[in-house]
Amino acid sequence: MTQIIDKVIAYAKQNDATFFKDFIELLKIASISTDSIHHAEIISAANWLKQYLEKIGVTESRVIETTQNPLVIGEWLRAGPDKPTILVYGHYDVQPPDPIDQWISDPFVPTVRDNHLFSRGASDMKGQLMIALSAIQAFAATSELPVNLKFIFEGEEEIGSPTIENYLMENKDLLKADFALNLDAGMISMDYPTIVYGLRGLAYFEIKIKGPSHDLHSGLFGGIVYNPAQALCEILSKMKSSNGKIMLPNFYNSVIDIDDEEREELKRLPLSEEYYLGQSGTTMLTGETGYSAVERVGARPTLEIHGILTGYTGEGPKTVIPAEAMAKISMRLVPNQTPEEVHGQLLEFMQKNAPGSVTWEIKKLASDPACVIERDFWATTCFASALEKVWNKAPVYKREGGSIPIVSHMRTILGMPSVLSGFGLPDDRIHSPNENMNLEMWHRGIETVIWFLGTVADYRVKRLNP
Amino acid sequence: MTQIIDKVIAYAKQNDATFFKDFIELLKIASISTDSIHHAEIISAANWLKQYLEKIGVTESRVIETTQNPLVIGEWLRAGPDKPTILVYGHYDVQPPDPIDQWISDPFVPTVRDNHLFSRGASDMKGQLMIALSAIQAFAATSELPVNLKFIFEGEEEIGSPTIENYLMENKDLLKADFALNLDAGMISMDYPTIVYGLRGLAYFEIKIKGPSHDLHSGLFGGIVYNPAQALCEILSKMKSSNGKIMLPNFYNSVIDIDDEEREELKRLPLSEEYYLGQSGTTMLTGETGYSAVERVGARPTLEIHGILTGYTGEGPKTVIPAEAMAKISMRLVPNQTPEEVHGQLLEFMQKNAPGSVTWEIKKLASDPACVIERDFWATTCFASALEKVWNKAPVYKREGGSIPIVSHMRTILGMPSVLSGFGLPDDRIHSPNENMNLEMWHRGIETVIWFLGTVADYRVKRLNP
Repeated sequence: MTQIIDKVIAYAKQNDATFFKDFIELLKIASISTDSIHHAEIISAANWLKQYLEKIGVTESRVIETTQNPLVIGEWLRAGPDKPTILVYGHYDVQPPDPIDQWISDPFVPTVRDNHLFSRGASDMKGQLMIALSAIQAFAATSELPVNLKFIFEGEEEIGSPTIENYLMENKDLLKADFALNLDAGMISMDYPTIVYGLRGLAYFEIKIKGPSHDLHSGLFGGIVYNPAQALCEILSKMKSSNGKIMLPNFYNSVIDIDDEEREELKRLPLSEEYYLGQSGTTMLTGETGYSAVERVGARPTLEIHGILTGYTGEGPKTVIPAEAMAKISMRLVPNQTPEEVHGQLLEFMQKNAPGSVTWEIKKLASDPACVIERDFWATTCFASALEKVWNKAPVYKREGGSIPIVSHMRTILGMPSVLSGFGLPDDRIHSPNENMNLEMWHRGIETVIWFLGTVADYRVKRLNP
Repeated sequence: MTQIIDKVIAYAKQNDATFFKDFIELLKIASISTDSIHHAEIISAANWLKQYLEKIGVTESRVIETTQNPLVIGEWLRAGPDKPTILVYGHYDVQPPDPIDQWISDPFVPTVRDNHLFSRGASDMKGQLMIALSAIQAFAATSELPVNLKFIFEGEEEIGSPTIENYLMENKDLLKADFALNLDAGMISMDYPTIVYGLRGLAYFEIKIKGPSHDLHSGLFGGIVYNPAQALCEILSKMKSSNGKIMLPNFYNSVIDIDDEEREELKRLPLSEEYYLGQSGTTMLTGETGYSAVERVGARPTLEIHGILTGYTGEGPKTVIPAEAMAKISMRLVPNQTPEEVHGQLLEFMQKNAPGSVTWEIKKLASDPACVIERDFWATTCFASALEKVWNKAPVYKREGGSIPIVSHMRTILGMPSVLSGFGLPDDRIHSPNENMNLEMWHRGIETVIWFLGTVADYRVKRLNP
């Protein structure tokens, strides 16, 4: 097999310009899921992927309508029933580019500078998806693929994957596979290929505070009306204590604390305070006392404000008391917290803390439970070995601070573990202006996936016949 | 004189449609000073007023360039040196119409519904200005004006009058007059014609909090980075205590408290808690303990948040930790506070309260000291009597919560008192969507100013020869 793999890698190198051109084409489509104004681009991206799958030989591929953004589905089962089947997961939607004025080049005109490709989605995760598809294309063009493949690409990952859950429930047989391959998790750094074995959950809310029936002149009503902006600030600032504890009632009741063994393991990761300071560009870290930075980021629940809008925010002064104030916040959850229980805690907190002279509404925008994956799963071990082939170094295992709802859906609905890894780096600026992919990772990523595709069948055999 | 006044009023009634048409024309010009994108409309409004003055016989009128928005100047001195000279003040700039989607009709397409004229500036203060000019036009068309007139109209009142101060300092002789007539103050209600004898000052600031060097993914950095939105909320919520006191260091040191006499007077005003509840559309009033609503609004300093913008505020969820957060706030000041001392207090407060892991900037957007005017000034007494003629009821005297920088400039630079009144009502929704003028007030206003113009010379004679 090693000879075949070498041939496939050689083919991938020769055809890199073609693979890269396809990648660029996909990046140019502004498939932003957060704002429905971009629905046409969402549809374009889905159609593009379907056609791409057909081009690389996955003739059984379809665009599936949902109540929101379509899924792209495909299958290639010609390796036969004695070979493992991988469900390749991806998402083709991207985050909005805001604040747009901070981009050095247009977010949807992919631009290479210093061996980095700058574009919204370059890393999260059109880049990861195209790494996987390029590896598959190289394999299929060179040799017989030694695995069966199924594909499911969604267009709603950045908005909490609201409709894929239903599709999984209704199509369990169609999607049956040994495991899912999900490259939406990142690496600690270029020197530390990474396997992720835990993900935090997410409970995302919009809070609206309403005060007077209309905007008021602060000279005529200042000092007598509870300003909704003031009420919002007071409420949000009460949500965390000065030692970083989240003050929602009973918030920590179902939190499973990390044990000593995991604590020791997390300590071994090259994720020092200095690392996080450098990556975030801040001068001082903060957060919950009693936990290290890597513990706070991956293994402890957090609460963050994502946006606030109230009143006049244009140029110059306007002396208005706004009639309402809005904030977006979310909590990252760890086992065994559920988004439902956190929603209840938030409502209780608001009832206790919102002043009587304002009214409020809470809107749920996304929710996903936390998820931990077994670390010695055979396909995960194979992926670790593929990473080691390319990096000449065993990968590290870590918990991820982010949430990937699909991973828990794969587990709970399809009963399927996920191999969770990826080639994104912390300074790829995902979700931020100037998102980019380091092109060295593009090449290493394709090689890694080729190694994985070429060897994973053997790992299953070894596991079945140890 | 009463006969002449009756003739002038009759003329005004006959020509109301023409006066109203001119008013509408001025309202159509979106002369918003807060955002420099509307500079062309600012220029149009200034030119329109110059031409209007010329049309009504004020041939000596000019548009004066400043470093920002032009002034319109005019004079008509044919009554002769033994008659009083009035400096008619006005501002032709308006507030932005935001939030624009809450307007029932376009803010710059003046529309009459239920005997109210809806348009940005209908009340504040194109309406008040056109009441004065219509009265002057009616007088000049019917009889000899028994007063000399000078005019000064600015286009920067809504942004704190930054350049007029300089012009006043350099043109003291040109603007010499017995007093200024300023109709930019409103009435308590339609049944209570009002003379204003006190104005609060204003100190307006923009606060910017900066945290990480770029927006961060909350899954990867949540729980370890001081979120600038969180820091901003904490800082703003610490600015007021739960009993409504402003917590800037030494904030109340130079505040002159109201005395018992003034307290008794303020009690007589028809400004109950119920009144303020009705006007603001809230269910409960709030504010500084130990002071009534009318005292808090007019005679005590206040601090309000006007706007906050940070992070993602579009549709749906976006899991970002914003790199920065911005708020606009202002303090209304009472004698003897100065904007400079409050600026210093704010800086000291920020130094004490901003967390060490963020940086901050304070930008001054407007500042004006407080001002109290003598209540028995002869021209004020004349205006009170003119109001009484039209309302059959003596006006009330009150302190106004708003700030009119020009009133203190007239006093300190030109040594000139202002007659401060106006025909705006509290439910005119100035600075808010659906600003309007009650057309009954338009007619009463014109009559009142005609009475004032016709009788003010006699009041000066009486005062000089009591």
